Amino acid sequence: MFSVTVRDHMMIAHSFRGEVFGPAQRLHGATFVVDATFRRPELDADGIVVDIGLATEQLKAVLGALTYRNLDDEPAFAGVNTTTEVLARTVADRLAEAVHAGRLGEGAHGLAGITVTLHESHVAWASYERSL
Amino acid sequence: MFSVTVRDHMMIAHSFRGEVFGPAQRLHGATFVVDATFRRPELDADGIVVDIGLATEQLKAVLGALTYRNLDDEPAFAGVNTTTEVLARTVADRLAEAVHAGRLGEGAHGLAGITVTLHESHVAWASYERSL
Amino acid sequence: MFSVTVRDHMMIAHSFRGEVFGPAQRLHGATFVVDATFRRPELDADGIVVDIGLATEQLKAVLGALTYRNLDDEPAFAGVNTTTEVLARTVADRLAEAVHAGRLGEGAHGLAGITVTLHESHVAWASYERSL
Amino acid sequence: MFSVTVRDHMMIAHSFRGEVFGPAQRLHGATFVVDATFRRPELDADGIVVDIGLATEQLKAVLGALTYRNLDDEPAFAGVNTTTEVLARTVADRLAEAVHAGRLGEGAHGLAGITVTLHESHVAWASYERSL
Amino acid sequence: MFSVTVRDHMMIAHSFRGEVFGPAQRLHGATFVVDATFRRPELDADGIVVDIGLATEQLKAVLGALTYRNLDDEPAFAGVNTTTEVLARTVADRLAEAVHAGRLGEGAHGLAGITVTLHESHVAWASYERSL
Amino acid sequence: MFSVTVRDHMMIAHSFRGEVFGPAQRLHGATFVVDATFRRPELDADGIVVDIGLATEQLKAVLGALTYRNLDDEPAFAGVNTTTEVLARTVADRLAEAVHAGRLGEGAHGLAGITVTLHESHVAWASYERSL
Repeated sequence: MFSVTVRDHMMIAHSFRGEVFGPAQRLHGATFVVDATFRRPELDADGIVVDIGLATEQLKAVLGALTYRNLDDEPAFAGVNTTTEVLARTVADRLAEAVHAGRLGEGAHGLAGITVTLHESHVAWASYERSL
Repeated sequence: MFSVTVRDHMMIAHSFRGEVFGPAQRLHGATFVVDATFRRPELDADGIVVDIGLATEQLKAVLGALTYRNLDDEPAFAGVNTTTEVLARTVADRLAEAVHAGRLGEGAHGLAGITVTLHESHVAWASYERSL
Repeated sequence: MFSVTVRDHMMIAHSFRGEVFGPAQRLHGATFVVDATFRRPELDADGIVVDIGLATEQLKAVLGALTYRNLDDEPAFAGVNTTTEVLARTVADRLAEAVHAGRLGEGAHGLAGITVTLHESHVAWASYERSL
Repeated sequence: MFSVTVRDHMMIAHSFRGEVFGPAQRLHGATFVVDATFRRPELDADGIVVDIGLATEQLKAVLGALTYRNLDDEPAFAGVNTTTEVLARTVADRLAEAVHAGRLGEGAHGLAGITVTLHESHVAWASYERSL
Repeated sequence: MFSVTVRDHMMIAHSFRGEVFGPAQRLHGATFVVDATFRRPELDADGIVVDIGLATEQLKAVLGALTYRNLDDEPAFAGVNTTTEVLARTVADRLAEAVHAGRLGEGAHGLAGITVTLHESHVAWASYERSL
Repeated sequence: MFSVTVRDHMMIAHSFRGEVFGPAQRLHGATFVVDATFRRPELDADGIVVDIGLATEQLKAVLGALTYRNLDDEPAFAGVNTTTEVLARTVADRLAEAVHAGRLGEGAHGLAGITVTLHESHVAWASYERSL
């Protein structure tokens, strides 16, 4: 199995509902350094997993719709805790839509799966892995 | 599949038995930067894999029983080479016990597996992955 | 010259005033991974720059007063852009107060200076360096 | 499952054929920081996955045959784009040959698989995973 | 003293003249992860060292004139070994020109100095520091 | 001012005397990831600060005399706490001797100073800076 990963980041504000979150129930924020990994069993004719330029561009586009915002005000997350895990799934699902819509190129239809990891600090990160 | 990882460290002395270890047969030591990864197929009702506060606390407790010690003197490791691989399994197994004992919260009973990675330097690390 | 550095982090929300900040004028947030460096020309009798346990504890205390908050609501920052640079100075100045108040131990009175670096992402960070 | 990873690097020149590569069609170069991961379900009698000294040595030997070269001139890559993905497979396959030839020690015959990751920058990397 | 650093990278081919370079006399290549640090004694009225958006943009522009090239063919480096040290100075000097030309904004005229660090691998890097 | 840094590591056991060290008074150990920085105001005729091959070799030699040992048993440290700070100075002083003895090449006589940083974990490190 082959994979290619590209990294970018977003900076958001949010708060959580639920006693399990302790002080993170207050409005606070995070930088998420985001790694998007694309997997496929065999390389395409060019010898690549995915067009890394398009992958970088589409990750930037997905993060661009989230960054510099207070996620508590985003309709897409109404009634949902925007935990690192939930945001990892959101980014992965939106990248999957981009793949299906052809925005990562024709070759990307050969992708088998996507994993997205969000690093919230130097001591904590979360991932979501899905097939395509 | 979702995962959450927390990082901490321990600083131990030890020596190895066996020619394969070369100069590491002498008493020496290591800082292990330890990543504990918790996996589950679906998030709980709060939108999390595990209570990250409890996960951090329990990892610190497990490492607290090992750090600032000469592992050659620890009864738990009598007759065992405390290699990075063996210590990764030890940490993972003790975290699994903590999960089963409810010390990571009720939600943690939904966890599917644990992976523990011990970084022994900037150029070497070892992992142990187990189910729960 | 000797130095010792300890690392911790904080997670805050804030917004900026001024066209130079572009989209960061909106309410957003950041994780700041914070490195506090303590400098002195000679080591003390124990062979250290500062009690690293106290340094870690005091850095945690300073960050504890900032983390999991919306800095736009903090009286200490009324009318001030809480840029990475300003926050680096704030943390350094509060650590300097802790040194002067003896909270880093008696030995810390031999410290010559403090530098605080705040990493806001994998591609940007800011520092403030001051004498003591 | 256990794993051990060792890290080294190589510095090469190359160019790509295909419009998908954009400016990378020109002769340019890269540092690849290379992580070689060895996996096995159970540890050997010494408590290790593989002799880390031999693993480090063999990774250096494999990279030594590639580094400080223009890969466009290497017969082994005639007619092939030496993408990060292709090079990850090359390194993994050559390490697999070394395992089969006994160059990682007798114990290495118990290895189940190898994964090789090539980091081409702080924001992009590729992996190839194979069984043994 | 305050500083702000932004990070980007370039990927180049080159060769060196001189026995001291050993195998690096052959045509090879490197990824340079580049950190550009801007220093000033006091913050401007917005509370910043420099417009981080412009700093990022100008660093990208400077690196864009070097990346995906064989530096042996660049007239700017005729007769010069493009060592990591030399390239660090080149990047710093071109950023200094950008500051003087006003491309980092009016506020950047208050900058006192620039340091550029080029990381050529996980085990080697070089810096050049200059005043403005 | 120019600088070049090379990185290596050592793995040692030791214990400390003094209440300030708390649990680190027990025999324990550490991996130190060691960065050795060489500084000079102008480059030599080859366009370098120092022969990076020799710098790497000499750093390895200095660390080779310390690694895989219990520093409590080393005569060189009798009656001395081998703190991270003290070890940073030891490594820097031994590298300075190597420079003076010509082991970093003739060009190294133009060096102005050395800084050595020892990373003891992902959250703590110490440096010693000296002139030559």
